[in-house]
Amino acid sequence: MSAPIRFHFDFSSPYGFLASLRIDAIGARHGRSVDWKPILLGAVFKVSGQQPLLGIPMKGEYARHDLTRFARLWGSALEMPPVFPFSSVAASRLFYWLEETDPARAVPFAKAAFAAAWEQRRDIGTPDGTVAVAAGLGVAPEAARAAIASPAVKERLRREVDAAIAAGVFGSPYVVVDGEAFWGADRLWQVEEWLARGGW
Amino acid sequence: MSAPIRFHFDFSSPYGFLASLRIDAIGARHGRSVDWKPILLGAVFKVSGQQPLLGIPMKGEYARHDLTRFARLWGSALEMPPVFPFSSVAASRLFYWLEETDPARAVPFAKAAFAAAWEQRRDIGTPDGTVAVAAGLGVAPEAARAAIASPAVKERLRREVDAAIAAGVFGSPYVVVDGEAFWGADRLWQVEEWLARGGW
Repeated sequence: MSAPIRFHFDFSSPYGFLASLRIDAIGARHGRSVDWKPILLGAVFKVSGQQPLLGIPMKGEYARHDLTRFARLWGSALEMPPVFPFSSVAASRLFYWLEETDPARAVPFAKAAFAAAWEQRRDIGTPDGTVAVAAGLGVAPEAARAAIASPAVKERLRREVDAAIAAGVFGSPYVVVDGEAFWGADRLWQVEEWLARGGW
Repeated sequence: MSAPIRFHFDFSSPYGFLASLRIDAIGARHGRSVDWKPILLGAVFKVSGQQPLLGIPMKGEYARHDLTRFARLWGSALEMPPVFPFSSVAASRLFYWLEETDPARAVPFAKAAFAAAWEQRRDIGTPDGTVAVAAGLGVAPEAARAAIASPAVKERLRREVDAAIAAGVFGSPYVVVDGEAFWGADRLWQVEEWLARGGW
């Protein structure tokens, strides 16, 4: 088994959501596991000086159209959330807590949170919304709520975000395979090509 | 024959160059001609408030690596030009002049200018450099030089850039097929999919 694929994403990134629909299947086709890594684009943008895509003149309008078109192509009925942008802090903390305490539920939670936000018009921007998604997977609400407020979990997320920034992660999705970085859902075909050929 | 594909690009855009390697073949596979439309990203960025990709922290370094890797995948030995960014005004004017006076040479000139800038480390940022590229295709240097300085040709380019901005073009490459816009060399697979399916 070769090294896992690293999959960095922000729960509030629609292109991160699109990549999440395919990344595990791509890994599976090439004998790779996928290491899911939620990040916070807000912290990243502070370093890189970028602004959120959907707020950029011309480009933002294009992206709204592109997103739903891209999602349709991949079989997802993506809709812009009623509240956007939303905070991805609670969902990211819950993910890392699950990864430490109940690892088999971490990625299923990430997928459920993504679907809740981007297909079901549910609010995952608050602890309550995030806890409700986790509860749907059988995670005890009181424990989940406590995890989101826990200093150790907060610290874990901070560490992950800092490490991602230090590694050059500047967007979502940002996929790393054998040291090669690929940014964007529209680069997944190159990730697959890289895995198939062992580089080029 | 269906409507042509509109292919907007800036000669100084490396991803525009990458798209130029494939766009005609994509059109041909689906019975479409391609309408090549040089634009000036500098003018576009004034409206959209964006900055050139390669100058953005983190993202710019990634893009330099991504570019050569992407080019290798498509069989091009892309190299960053010795002078970058360079002006694409002279090449764009010469293109539109050829389109009006010697249309069979316009797209071959665009391809030669792109190759000169992105594979051969030649300078197309000056009238002299651009005229030399055109001369290689049999275009008389004196006429080419006069065209680049001609008020009518300058006005034509201005009109094209204004029309592109009015149509929402905010980047390079920017491809429009049957009213659907696709931005980026990494969206060409979706352009092809759109043509093959007649939309989705």
